[in-house]
Amino acid sequence: MDFKELANKYQTPLYVYDFDYMAAQYDELKSAFKGRKSIIAYAVKANSNLSVVKHFADMGSGADCVSIGEVRRAFLAGVPSYKIIFSGVGKSDDEIREAIEKDILYINVESEAELGRVELIAKELGKVSRISIRVNPNIDPKTHPYISTGLHDNKFGVDLNSAKRMYIKANNSEHLDPVGIHFHIGSQLTELEPIRESAEIVADLVRSLEGINIELKFFDIGGGLGIRYDNEITIKPYDYVQAILGTLTALDLTILCEPGRFLTANAGYFISKVLYEKQNGEKKFVVIDGAMNDLLRPSLYNAYHKIDVITDSKEEPRAVDIVGPVCESGDFFAKNYPLPPLNHNDLVIVNSAGAYGFGMGSNYNTRGRSAEVALESGEDRLIRKRETFEDLIALEQEFLKA
Amino acid sequence: MDFKELANKYQTPLYVYDFDYMAAQYDELKSAFKGRKSIIAYAVKANSNLSVVKHFADMGSGADCVSIGEVRRAFLAGVPSYKIIFSGVGKSDDEIREAIEKDILYINVESEAELGRVELIAKELGKVSRISIRVNPNIDPKTHPYISTGLHDNKFGVDLNSAKRMYIKANNSEHLDPVGIHFHIGSQLTELEPIRESAEIVADLVRSLEGINIELKFFDIGGGLGIRYDNEITIKPYDYVQAILGTLTALDLTILCEPGRFLTANAGYFISKVLYEKQNGEKKFVVIDGAMNDLLRPSLYNAYHKIDVITDSKEEPRAVDIVGPVCESGDFFAKNYPLPPLNHNDLVIVNSAGAYGFGMGSNYNTRGRSAEVALESGEDRLIRKRETFEDLIALEQEFLKA
Repeated sequence: MDFKELANKYQTPLYVYDFDYMAAQYDELKSAFKGRKSIIAYAVKANSNLSVVKHFADMGSGADCVSIGEVRRAFLAGVPSYKIIFSGVGKSDDEIREAIEKDILYINVESEAELGRVELIAKELGKVSRISIRVNPNIDPKTHPYISTGLHDNKFGVDLNSAKRMYIKANNSEHLDPVGIHFHIGSQLTELEPIRESAEIVADLVRSLEGINIELKFFDIGGGLGIRYDNEITIKPYDYVQAILGTLTALDLTILCEPGRFLTANAGYFISKVLYEKQNGEKKFVVIDGAMNDLLRPSLYNAYHKIDVITDSKEEPRAVDIVGPVCESGDFFAKNYPLPPLNHNDLVIVNSAGAYGFGMGSNYNTRGRSAEVALESGEDRLIRKRETFEDLIALEQEFLKA
Repeated sequence: MDFKELANKYQTPLYVYDFDYMAAQYDELKSAFKGRKSIIAYAVKANSNLSVVKHFADMGSGADCVSIGEVRRAFLAGVPSYKIIFSGVGKSDDEIREAIEKDILYINVESEAELGRVELIAKELGKVSRISIRVNPNIDPKTHPYISTGLHDNKFGVDLNSAKRMYIKANNSEHLDPVGIHFHIGSQLTELEPIRESAEIVADLVRSLEGINIELKFFDIGGGLGIRYDNEITIKPYDYVQAILGTLTALDLTILCEPGRFLTANAGYFISKVLYEKQNGEKKFVVIDGAMNDLLRPSLYNAYHKIDVITDSKEEPRAVDIVGPVCESGDFFAKNYPLPPLNHNDLVIVNSAGAYGFGMGSNYNTRGRSAEVALESGEDRLIRKRETFEDLIALEQEFLKA
């Protein structure tokens, strides 16, 4: 990948996505489900650029959405309605209404109160809403607390008893059609056993529902498959699918899988330029033109990203902090990272930036967000323009009183 | 303040700013400097809405900017060039060029490498650039590590010896005019002594520079004055100013002060609507329509914000987690906070949201950012429109290949 040419052509800071890598990841996961009825529903929140969503849609992917905005992205990108699902703990009435009207595959319901709203709104619309219920299996996924979602002290899903009660209620309602069951215990999972255990618990609930004549069609295993940021030992898609299939004996269900990070993280590179090096006391800093407003993960999760540099420097690496221009000490990409002495305009490449990168970006410090570029079959193309100052003030300038 | 009426009129989630409160804070600080040459330069990053910047400009405020975007905001809002300063560790060549061309008061230089770039660019432009140097006094401000900036292991400023060397270099340059000295040890400071100590160290450097005939005009004490989020005992503006003046014996300097949070934080309210209550195991959650993409501080700094509710509920408060719809366990506003049982559409008011609130907002999960409203002399007015889905995809839709 010629980062130097891309940086010259599109300027920095810049997000670059390898669409071929995304396709390979999709294929690997899809083929692990070979011979089973399955839908891969791309988790749009991981990287919601319309061209990225379309890239997966073109390969047959569905879309896992967590806001009506994401549902709209999925439709625009050509995902068929029958492969779109809508999850999330806080759906507003307007969002629920639009999802029902658009006749998506199902709404993933996350609380008894939400089930009541969905029923009420479906009734108002004179429709039947297909639903799934997100079950919280109370299993520790052993990941970062902020992205762990399957424990009872998390806000997500409902416990097994509540779920059963809700299925019975839904089954008795004229306006609800319970078609699926969902669980998702966290993101960046690197251990298989918690996933298998969760699937087993949820499959048992499916069987118990069958016993009272509630027949579900979709077994939604969520996403969360971890990727290698550093030297993590990750779960092989084949093992992942086998472990889940092993829990579904005698059940005829379509499996839904919602990968996000797995498909996009290692396809993405964040390219930034060196502005300065500086020494403060014992500390050496490399100041680059990208910042926490571009990529929040190091600051928010203390996340590790592998970093490469493009430089003529032949000197020995030293431990440096790689930081951005934002006026916060929390604005960093890495601490005590070994890099050789760098020059003005050398390039710093932050790896694994294709998921939860641009999408968490802000305009903090009045910094426009980066451009986004796709690489596909050796060709590069812009998929989102760099934000200008005019873009940033567009919604407020007219209110500036004379 | 009639939050219910505002929520009905402008919808939720919503930022509301009390402009009268901002004015009172400005007046209190300005009058503490009475009888001294001083410039209050509002730290635009705290709340960069153009109408907010203009509000302070109309009262005579300057602007402390940390990007060329903020400099442009200051100009648009009517701040005169001679009251605009440009700080930050990572200024790009383009930003430096524009700042010199716009003839702002001075550029706050944060490293020797940057001093070299400023000189080079001023030379290319055939101009003289007024500069100040940010000195890092190596004093612990006793605040959150992410907003502490005055220690040697922070990226900000330069040490005393480097500063002296840089002043001599600047003084000998045809294209640099050293006019000021700057320090800023952190944000949300609640202890006076570290500020006084820092001022003393920096004032000593000013005297030592006078000894070698380098005469500065501006003593820039940064910002960082803490505010009350909870029950903090804060520094009184009068005491603050007196402590600094006490270090400036026999020096004839204009004091620059860069308040941000102090002026805006407690003027701001983030208004959100209750979507659902839910119980998971022992935990009770209130799910509201605002999220971490609207207000990141709780998630990023584990920051405390006082929360009020508007409800007809007369029941006893219970400990609840107040969370948003974003699919992260890190999406919360408060944990174990005492609130009475709430109903769908009750209002939740997050206090002290006027600084580092909207400005750190993102479109994560394809959520449009809130509208912003000003309250002034009993009148409310929109100062930024709510972002629509169309706004969110405006820069990428054209690249969606058929």
